[in-house]
Amino acid sequence: MTFAALTVLLTILATATMAASAAIQAVRHEFDAFGATVLAMTTALGGGTVRDLLIGRTPVFWITDLTYIATTIPTALGTYWLATRMASGNGRRERLLLRFDAIGLALFTLVGIGVANQAATTPVIAVIIGCITGTVGGMIRDMLCNETPTILRRDLYATISLAGGALYLGLATIAPDPVAIGVSFAAMLATRLLVIERNSPT
Amino acid sequence: MTFAALTVLLTILATATMAASAAIQAVRHEFDAFGATVLAMTTALGGGTVRDLLIGRTPVFWITDLTYIATTIPTALGTYWLATRMASGNGRRERLLLRFDAIGLALFTLVGIGVANQAATTPVIAVIIGCITGTVGGMIRDMLCNETPTILRRDLYATISLAGGALYLGLATIAPDPVAIGVSFAAMLATRLLVIERNSPT
Amino acid sequence: MTFAALTVLLTILATATMAASAAIQAVRHEFDAFGATVLAMTTALGGGTVRDLLIGRTPVFWITDLTYIATTIPTALGTYWLATRMASGNGRRERLLLRFDAIGLALFTLVGIGVANQAATTPVIAVIIGCITGTVGGMIRDMLCNETPTILRRDLYATISLAGGALYLGLATIAPDPVAIGVSFAAMLATRLLVIERNSPT
Repeated sequence: MTFAALTVLLTILATATMAASAAIQAVRHEFDAFGATVLAMTTALGGGTVRDLLIGRTPVFWITDLTYIATTIPTALGTYWLATRMASGNGRRERLLLRFDAIGLALFTLVGIGVANQAATTPVIAVIIGCITGTVGGMIRDMLCNETPTILRRDLYATISLAGGALYLGLATIAPDPVAIGVSFAAMLATRLLVIERNSPT
Repeated sequence: MTFAALTVLLTILATATMAASAAIQAVRHEFDAFGATVLAMTTALGGGTVRDLLIGRTPVFWITDLTYIATTIPTALGTYWLATRMASGNGRRERLLLRFDAIGLALFTLVGIGVANQAATTPVIAVIIGCITGTVGGMIRDMLCNETPTILRRDLYATISLAGGALYLGLATIAPDPVAIGVSFAAMLATRLLVIERNSPT
Repeated sequence: MTFAALTVLLTILATATMAASAAIQAVRHEFDAFGATVLAMTTALGGGTVRDLLIGRTPVFWITDLTYIATTIPTALGTYWLATRMASGNGRRERLLLRFDAIGLALFTLVGIGVANQAATTPVIAVIIGCITGTVGGMIRDMLCNETPTILRRDLYATISLAGGALYLGLATIAPDPVAIGVSFAAMLATRLLVIERNSPT
């Protein structure tokens, strides 16, 4: 599998998980299915869009390739339908939302670094671009829902993205790319899930 | 009248109606005239700005042509002056705001599709660019006023823009452009006003 | 000192003051040090980023030159540390925040006009680009903290930036650049501090 194909696959997975997190947030805020779809599109495509604008890669990625919009809409509608069927009030929806968000954070961080590397930026900028790609979607989701973004409230959110990105760049110099991606993805996801568990009210 | 001249005319009309909607929102939130003007500029120019950034058409439209800023400022100040004179508490200001917003939504959708067509995008992307151009200004207006955007709360807002855009593209293949614009504009406006009427508390 | 070196120096000063204002805002909203750093980066780099995007100068300034990120992080952490040690509840933190914000507003306005002049825009657009560069960082800071932005609430905020920018452009035609910068900076800062003093509850 080439690096380009791997990036496309990771982007599709990341897009789907962030779309799912947005659809759950939409149910929690009692939006209808149309609002959920709009929220899912801004959340799932927002991070990569800001990344493309900052490095001057226009038209942005989802204009040149319809795959990402085609991924977002059915994922958002399916998750919305399932989430409306979950019992509310016991924090289950919020925990599910945070777990999808954790997967999306880790995946989009790696995707962002891949794109930054293609644009031949320095390692420091690549790590920051990865962090922006990973965190901006969720930031837009929370701002549109009138909540203070997770990234500002809970520690280790942006930090996990930055540390995971640096870990990937380090590993990539000594190991094949799929290994570097796999290890740094697992490290980011595990740390983030641990933080979520620890901050959980139960 | 050429297509380019028609687009300029539609953009000026759309800019003025969105500036008016923002000025009314500013009165409702007790901003002063300066805040109203700032809000009107971000609302009236925001949708087209995001569109230009996404497709890579920079410098953005209002930098290369001062007409749009020149339209926004007097419209905002005039509407602000009039809206402060309207009695509050009976929902009249909100209804007027929603009607201006409906006109702006329909006009900016068509303007956005026109620009996307000039940039030679596919029909699906053209409809989405039209929807972004039509809805982002109002979204920014509501976020700056700390309200959950209409687009997320009330159904059919983005849907009307998407359906109206698709209708226009269909009509444009069988009818002259002014006819296609007129019919799809009327369809979007009528549907949106109907939804506003139906959701109205009275 | 060349004009380019002067612009770099002013940008670093403006970046540091806006980072400090964001760190104080973070303490007021009880963010941790990580959230404070993220808020400081979006605030200090946000205005110049939007400016670069609008005029099509990509990759944006902090990607091509790491100085600005290197300025933001220690300033944010240092100010955060100091601000957590200030007694709360007496408005001292808010006054300090507003004063840093006033310095950043004046400095970034002049930096923005400098960049617009390099891009050969008309004077009207240069003044508006200056105002965007000066005000957008604080606008993002307030929106991320779920507050209605100062620019919409208190008069003379954007107005001081616009008037100061016009003053600079006028002076620059008859005086050497450092004089024009010094006088217009002093005028903007003095007016803004006067407005803050007058609106102060004491």
